[in-house]
Amino acid sequence: MKILVINCGSSSLKYQLFDMDSESVMAKGICERIGIAGSALTHKPSGKESCVIEKDMPDHKVAVQMVLDMLVDPVHGVISDIKEISAVGHRVLHAAQKYIDSVVVNEDVKATIRECFEFGPLHNPANLIGIEACEHAMPGVKNVAVFDTAFHQTMPKKAYMYAIPYEYYEKYGIRKYGFHGTSHAFVSKKAIELAGLDSNNSKVIVCHIGNGGSCSAVLNGKCVDTSMGLTPLEGLIMGTRSGDIDPAAVQFIANKEGKDINEMVNILNKKSGILGLSGVSSDFRDVYKAVTEGNEQAQTALDAFSYRVAKYVGSYVAAMNGVDAIVFTAGVGENHAPVRANICQYFGYLGIKLDEQANDNTKGVEGTISTADSKVKVMVIPTNEELKIAQETLALVQ
Amino acid sequence: MKILVINCGSSSLKYQLFDMDSESVMAKGICERIGIAGSALTHKPSGKESCVIEKDMPDHKVAVQMVLDMLVDPVHGVISDIKEISAVGHRVLHAAQKYIDSVVVNEDVKATIRECFEFGPLHNPANLIGIEACEHAMPGVKNVAVFDTAFHQTMPKKAYMYAIPYEYYEKYGIRKYGFHGTSHAFVSKKAIELAGLDSNNSKVIVCHIGNGGSCSAVLNGKCVDTSMGLTPLEGLIMGTRSGDIDPAAVQFIANKEGKDINEMVNILNKKSGILGLSGVSSDFRDVYKAVTEGNEQAQTALDAFSYRVAKYVGSYVAAMNGVDAIVFTAGVGENHAPVRANICQYFGYLGIKLDEQANDNTKGVEGTISTADSKVKVMVIPTNEELKIAQETLALVQ
Repeated sequence: MKILVINCGSSSLKYQLFDMDSESVMAKGICERIGIAGSALTHKPSGKESCVIEKDMPDHKVAVQMVLDMLVDPVHGVISDIKEISAVGHRVLHAAQKYIDSVVVNEDVKATIRECFEFGPLHNPANLIGIEACEHAMPGVKNVAVFDTAFHQTMPKKAYMYAIPYEYYEKYGIRKYGFHGTSHAFVSKKAIELAGLDSNNSKVIVCHIGNGGSCSAVLNGKCVDTSMGLTPLEGLIMGTRSGDIDPAAVQFIANKEGKDINEMVNILNKKSGILGLSGVSSDFRDVYKAVTEGNEQAQTALDAFSYRVAKYVGSYVAAMNGVDAIVFTAGVGENHAPVRANICQYFGYLGIKLDEQANDNTKGVEGTISTADSKVKVMVIPTNEELKIAQETLALVQ
Repeated sequence: MKILVINCGSSSLKYQLFDMDSESVMAKGICERIGIAGSALTHKPSGKESCVIEKDMPDHKVAVQMVLDMLVDPVHGVISDIKEISAVGHRVLHAAQKYIDSVVVNEDVKATIRECFEFGPLHNPANLIGIEACEHAMPGVKNVAVFDTAFHQTMPKKAYMYAIPYEYYEKYGIRKYGFHGTSHAFVSKKAIELAGLDSNNSKVIVCHIGNGGSCSAVLNGKCVDTSMGLTPLEGLIMGTRSGDIDPAAVQFIANKEGKDINEMVNILNKKSGILGLSGVSSDFRDVYKAVTEGNEQAQTALDAFSYRVAKYVGSYVAAMNGVDAIVFTAGVGENHAPVRANICQYFGYLGIKLDEQANDNTKGVEGTISTADSKVKVMVIPTNEELKIAQETLALVQ
């Protein structure tokens, strides 16, 4: 069975076509600058040469049609008929409290995605456009919505409620939702398998560290806490996002600089994090380079970053009263051994012993980086949100 | 040697007179409604009856003079001459990065307190008024400023920097400062003594839980992290303060309710926390009562409160790579055994065993509440900020 996975941004569309018999990628690509001058499709068929098509894509409907045409293209294509695609899985950012699992799209689902525009003003509208474009281009083919918030819906109330007037929860749904759910679900499940844990008796902490970042506590396969909040701003220090900060500090700066809260949150989202603190870049490679050149501010940024992750991990060990496995994933987690080592240095009290050589040698691949006698397994597991979306989609349409 | 301790609020003045030979309180009291109609002095001399004097106190100068008069009063007084007071210790909220210790007041110190008005707009001005009133009433007697932020000044940069544009730190001093420092210093020092730890090789976590609340991580007697931030809003869930929250959630509510950031932070400070979440009260006794009456929202508030404390403790265990002792102090921490039990249930992985009977029996007094074979000592130590201020003052004027 072949499943297409779509991830729509406001002006982009990423896709992967999976052959689910082997869970292999047949083709993938991205449409960029949709609705903007200079739009282009980059298509990477498996085992063939990549190609770039520069062509106007006024909207996502046109983009979806271009992707479908490319998939059956005699030269660059990988299937002979679009009817070979059994279903489409869509990444959707936010379903608030409505869906705790992936779901086959119907009018109710679309209404929910629409209701959640205000929680994901950049993503949810684009996600819905992608779904509707697929409905138009492939009538009769089922679309599945895989929500970034769904995996975290098992959090208990003590973890997701903010200590603010209760009416804000009732009136507006203000609470912690969490994000990267598809990644946390995929990686924690894989960790349980790899570590040989009993999934009904397992305590796993996932550190998803990329340009965005979040930690999650996964007890018996279910999320019980996560570091992102109502929005992806809360929690860890990220590439350009501050993560946690005293709200009164935001007020203080706003009053000093004559900015309102929207301008301030924009700064916290886009000019803060590793970028703001280091003054160098949001990219870890640049910041490491600056450190080697003696930049102390860059060093502080890296130290603060690792320290924040370690504190979240420590807090989740308490939340679950123990931990069996800690997993690193996403861009930084999969590829930066020094960051992993910095974080793990805090965990001697858990009986964690890092295998330094294994850590240094594990880059972008699955592997255990703790020693055989470490009391807690520390692992690297590359995330694969697209495959997880395809798996969820398959399960719902089979 | 006799030392007077003064704690000035905007319209109040608390005092205690100590005989430092025995570290005993000779008299204490409070002036209330200073500058407001209906002001009164409540005076409690040790071993004599308390008295209340209702008399206009237009400003703190008058209040200080009334306190001094009362201390030498033939009936209610405890000393025969004001000259017996060797020095005055003042609680001062904020010294930013200027003072890491208590200090004898001179013009420089007063200038610093003035410079920090913006960080403590309610407290620092009142603190300065109190100092100047004492200078006026007791010329030649040394005043000592004991700062609430000083103990936390040993935090490393990775702990106190927010991940925001670095210029805000340079321009405005935006960083984590922490509060309740006098309490954390007093209690952590006492914990090291009581637990028989080597102060140069000790890891102590203090949970100061009252109407305000903060945790601190004290490594080898020095603070390395604390939960309050630039202001006392950050961190734990408190009586009326939210503690940590996604800054974008604040923005979301502000936009929905048509409020600006100052109005929102006011709500986070005064209408949130246990009060906002429970919908009942900021007082734990009321909230517990509501729980026994089946109020689920009150239960959520208590669960969320304990869970937040447990996560902070867990994060500080990671920060110090272990812990020797966990100490509860302040109103709730000293008196509410169920709260302590709720928090400690998360720490089985640390080898912590609570002695339930000892916990139930320890109320407002010093005591160990973990079993003899618990791997980490859990203790209750009543805080005594006034005594600590007197001790600091004595050390500086001797």
